[in-house]
Amino acid sequence: MIDLRSDTVTKPTPEMRKAAFHADVGDDVYNEDPTVLELEALAAKKLGKEAAMFVPSGTQGNQIAVLTHCVSGQEVILEADSHIYFYEGGTISAFAGVQPRTLKGKDGAMNPYEVEAAIRVDDIHQPETGLICLENTHNRAGGAIVPLENMKAIYDIGKRRQIPVHLDGARLFNASVATGVSVAEYARYTDTIQFCLSKGLGAPVGSIIAGSKDFIVKGRKWRKRLGGGLRQAGMIAAPGLVALNTMVDRLAEDHEKATTLATGFKEINGLTIENNVDTNIVLVNTEKAGLTADQFVEKCKQEGILAVAFGPYTVRFTTHYDVSTNQVKEVVEKVNKMI
Amino acid sequence: MIDLRSDTVTKPTPEMRKAAFHADVGDDVYNEDPTVLELEALAAKKLGKEAAMFVPSGTQGNQIAVLTHCVSGQEVILEADSHIYFYEGGTISAFAGVQPRTLKGKDGAMNPYEVEAAIRVDDIHQPETGLICLENTHNRAGGAIVPLENMKAIYDIGKRRQIPVHLDGARLFNASVATGVSVAEYARYTDTIQFCLSKGLGAPVGSIIAGSKDFIVKGRKWRKRLGGGLRQAGMIAAPGLVALNTMVDRLAEDHEKATTLATGFKEINGLTIENNVDTNIVLVNTEKAGLTADQFVEKCKQEGILAVAFGPYTVRFTTHYDVSTNQVKEVVEKVNKMI
Amino acid sequence: MIDLRSDTVTKPTPEMRKAAFHADVGDDVYNEDPTVLELEALAAKKLGKEAAMFVPSGTQGNQIAVLTHCVSGQEVILEADSHIYFYEGGTISAFAGVQPRTLKGKDGAMNPYEVEAAIRVDDIHQPETGLICLENTHNRAGGAIVPLENMKAIYDIGKRRQIPVHLDGARLFNASVATGVSVAEYARYTDTIQFCLSKGLGAPVGSIIAGSKDFIVKGRKWRKRLGGGLRQAGMIAAPGLVALNTMVDRLAEDHEKATTLATGFKEINGLTIENNVDTNIVLVNTEKAGLTADQFVEKCKQEGILAVAFGPYTVRFTTHYDVSTNQVKEVVEKVNKMI
Amino acid sequence: MIDLRSDTVTKPTPEMRKAAFHADVGDDVYNEDPTVLELEALAAKKLGKEAAMFVPSGTQGNQIAVLTHCVSGQEVILEADSHIYFYEGGTISAFAGVQPRTLKGKDGAMNPYEVEAAIRVDDIHQPETGLICLENTHNRAGGAIVPLENMKAIYDIGKRRQIPVHLDGARLFNASVATGVSVAEYARYTDTIQFCLSKGLGAPVGSIIAGSKDFIVKGRKWRKRLGGGLRQAGMIAAPGLVALNTMVDRLAEDHEKATTLATGFKEINGLTIENNVDTNIVLVNTEKAGLTADQFVEKCKQEGILAVAFGPYTVRFTTHYDVSTNQVKEVVEKVNKMI
Repeated sequence: MIDLRSDTVTKPTPEMRKAAFHADVGDDVYNEDPTVLELEALAAKKLGKEAAMFVPSGTQGNQIAVLTHCVSGQEVILEADSHIYFYEGGTISAFAGVQPRTLKGKDGAMNPYEVEAAIRVDDIHQPETGLICLENTHNRAGGAIVPLENMKAIYDIGKRRQIPVHLDGARLFNASVATGVSVAEYARYTDTIQFCLSKGLGAPVGSIIAGSKDFIVKGRKWRKRLGGGLRQAGMIAAPGLVALNTMVDRLAEDHEKATTLATGFKEINGLTIENNVDTNIVLVNTEKAGLTADQFVEKCKQEGILAVAFGPYTVRFTTHYDVSTNQVKEVVEKVNKMI
Repeated sequence: MIDLRSDTVTKPTPEMRKAAFHADVGDDVYNEDPTVLELEALAAKKLGKEAAMFVPSGTQGNQIAVLTHCVSGQEVILEADSHIYFYEGGTISAFAGVQPRTLKGKDGAMNPYEVEAAIRVDDIHQPETGLICLENTHNRAGGAIVPLENMKAIYDIGKRRQIPVHLDGARLFNASVATGVSVAEYARYTDTIQFCLSKGLGAPVGSIIAGSKDFIVKGRKWRKRLGGGLRQAGMIAAPGLVALNTMVDRLAEDHEKATTLATGFKEINGLTIENNVDTNIVLVNTEKAGLTADQFVEKCKQEGILAVAFGPYTVRFTTHYDVSTNQVKEVVEKVNKMI
Repeated sequence: MIDLRSDTVTKPTPEMRKAAFHADVGDDVYNEDPTVLELEALAAKKLGKEAAMFVPSGTQGNQIAVLTHCVSGQEVILEADSHIYFYEGGTISAFAGVQPRTLKGKDGAMNPYEVEAAIRVDDIHQPETGLICLENTHNRAGGAIVPLENMKAIYDIGKRRQIPVHLDGARLFNASVATGVSVAEYARYTDTIQFCLSKGLGAPVGSIIAGSKDFIVKGRKWRKRLGGGLRQAGMIAAPGLVALNTMVDRLAEDHEKATTLATGFKEINGLTIENNVDTNIVLVNTEKAGLTADQFVEKCKQEGILAVAFGPYTVRFTTHYDVSTNQVKEVVEKVNKMI
Repeated sequence: MIDLRSDTVTKPTPEMRKAAFHADVGDDVYNEDPTVLELEALAAKKLGKEAAMFVPSGTQGNQIAVLTHCVSGQEVILEADSHIYFYEGGTISAFAGVQPRTLKGKDGAMNPYEVEAAIRVDDIHQPETGLICLENTHNRAGGAIVPLENMKAIYDIGKRRQIPVHLDGARLFNASVATGVSVAEYARYTDTIQFCLSKGLGAPVGSIIAGSKDFIVKGRKWRKRLGGGLRQAGMIAAPGLVALNTMVDRLAEDHEKATTLATGFKEINGLTIENNVDTNIVLVNTEKAGLTADQFVEKCKQEGILAVAFGPYTVRFTTHYDVSTNQVKEVVEKVNKMI
């Protein structure tokens, strides 16, 4: 099987397994796991934030951000196809009690004027706007890179209107590698930021949430409530350190593989590419091929190729460390014959 | 002051005051207030529903519907400018723990295809769709009447997909009087329905929520939790009965007054009318007059006219029982001079 | 029927009905109902608080207090049989997301040492203590009066530990009339306070919640979310004004009637009195009469007497304005024969 | 340092590290991690339940149980010192919106009659009882074993009254080893059960929640919402398998060490033992030594001994794999000199 469903499927490298084997550990609920502490310090430094915290998943990192920034009855502005809104089970409403205010973006980027217009006025009928969430790269927009200027414009609005900004940067390193803009530069335009070690960076488990010291102190309690207080978490933080130290630059290869894939698909009759392919995601439209996304995915599976339906006629392919350029070419050939 | 801010400002008529004075009452928490029971029976009958319940406000009626139909973690489909989403303080997320899924409608009516497309698939990342909410007439769309066929199409989707439908019919009687379609006919295409006695119908306080007997039994407990379990509520249900029995047909006059107002405003340089003026609401755009909505509202106030800002350049005027046709004409004249 | 189920069953007096009939009203959502404003000002003055707000029920007043004082994830200390914990549908957890920490009191009064011991330490595993709630008189303790010194001791702890205190004073006027201590004196030892106009004071509907101006501003928004924003609420505030102005001192009569009832019941073989009968509530234990509370209540009903089961062998009788001393004596006689 | 703060501080054994190194992994969000699946199957089998799910912590396992069994507005009966109530940050109220109904137990066991009496009646003022939670062994009762008959009696009540029962069995294997009753036998008297791999069993991270297939399907979604959907979780499930396969029987040694510790402490002037020392926990009372728990813990720390304050004069010592019998004896000697 050539598995292009997600970059989450990457398996830990031998170096990561060794790191787990040798990890110096302690009880992280007591804040005493040296490997976790090292990872948190490194992540904070890379992001230019005061503090960082290791969490078991990106979803938990994002939920901690919402729970810590907001109180029940507030509203959160976010992109209509953002992961927090679309793929986290309605949790910001279920747990934090906040109402999402969704804006349709262009290639994942919300229009700053629309963001400002969506901030609620002081009125007894209306919730207060408590947070603005960004996503970079933007998953459902096909791994689209949200421009730094867009982030800055929205962050400036947040500052001016005293509304914090959180960045779901699950794949921020992809944006950084593709643009050459450092993650710290991106992180300047957000109060808090979450990124995943377990996607393109290849770690088996875990994400980082970073921000001010005060935010992390409060966030630790929400992490505990969410069941994310782990014990000898160094066993998974150690592979995370390897990921952060050695797997960032190679994301460029994933992007090349995605370009190769998209270029190949474009030549296939009936398939069109929906996104710009900024990074490691390709969104293929299957409508002209007379196939629904589900049908296309099923046919691929029979050819030994895994992808995911992303809409009625949209299929997502995601490149990553465990799929080679040759395999990507093989995918193009097989799909070409398949249709 | 000529108060056109809302039809909620109507004061109880002498007949309503007399009804309150003479009301036969009991303790409604024990379900023993005869006047409340009479009002609930009448309302259920008019709507063609098994049962109805008196509630202190339309907001509470809507919240009871969401709390009774849904459980935490679900998603509710509703129009992006609907009252429940826009003007109820984010409460469906704060109390019911549900995430709104907003669709931009046309004149208050959501596209049924978009409604169906917005229903979530069975996926561990996604909330389940638990409810569809409609609003008729639609306040922010300028009192627009949602066509019966549109309601039917969405209700059919709900039936087919086993998702209940709730109608915020705060001003449903306005739609009914304007179209000649009975409220019972509208209510056929919704599982539960809320309408207000305290708007165009002129009662001082209160709304009705109606649906199946089972829904009302469960809803009574949520009403208690929301603090809507009243004691000798017959004192306000009695004016509500007068409203329901005697004030419905005269809503046509409010619609005529709104048309008069809109026709007058159209002639004024710099003002445009944003809505179709289906019922008793006129949305005036002030941009070409070089005034923001707030500035326009302030100038009106100095002329003894009250209206409300509804957007950056949008001002809402609402006609009702306590404003005469002559007063409406006076408003047009004053605004004409004012600009 | 002689209805001793609750003092909530009292019907509005002719004077209250007249007040409703003549009430000067406005739209209270816009804060413009003169009668509501008058009632709120009078209530605030009587309680010695900066501001007060009219709410449709005591439950809503209490919930507003919890929602305004607390955020989700906190803990609230309250008496194990308090109304907020026992009779409000679990709403402080459902809506405010707070966990009750219950302490068993003596005659409704919690031990201040136990209150202080129950305040949580700063620990990542534990919720923060966000509020202490008192109840005076205490319903399930049989209308017991919580001593002023007890309130003061707990309030002092709250001040010292920076934890606000809320008083559910649904029947505080009963305490005040019985002890001669003014409600303002009681209110000195609580940050916020709720009392009911619709119980012994005889108004048809409504309660008051009072506290600082800032608290009331925030509380108004929670009232709106709970669906307690009413329109021409003066129609029910007017009877409330009559209640507050004319019905307080006569509560002493209700207390005498309760004493008469308890004295009579004590003479009846098989019945014992569980409470001190400080005010207008009598708790009768039926176990030695070989009857469960439900059986006793049912037998009473057949004699034309209404009371409520309060426990497996406990029946509550509540005296009020609409039951005369003679009727109370009649109850004793009938029950005597009945057993 | 001799660390007796908790059995959570145990570090992974070399065998566990090897298991992590060699673990066969997949993406567990897609339900494809073979090691996780193996662990879940083994755990389900040992417990005699249809299905099991790996979760990152015991807290998350318990929260999933409450979220899956209950809906907002319900009440949960649990012991007043239970972990779910005392040490999980008020989360059952914050996230599940349920109100705890706490009963003070004897050695961690609630009285079945009191449990039944605490089940709510059908009344509009009261929450519905939605769940009963047990804890075995009971942490704050000093690792006390709740008798099988007690569990059975409460479970029978649950069945009869149609209320599910959940067991927080974080340390259930300690009970099983001490009594010789299998965990499956304990699990017969509960609908769902959580146990920790990361406490006495020595795994670095993780717990198991088990129950019916339907429960686990629903629970997986709540796990995702809580951020507990991990990717190559086999890296931590593999040590968990080692724990479950090889570390159970040796818990008896921890119990012996606890007995040794308690026996030693009893001889020390000023110290008394508060609990029965059924398993691996010793609760020492320091009051007669003239030391608060905090002072005692601080003095111990200076001697190279770690323990935790559990109350004003109560200190908890917990024995585990990483502390030898000789070290335990050393602790007794040092404390003896220290006081």
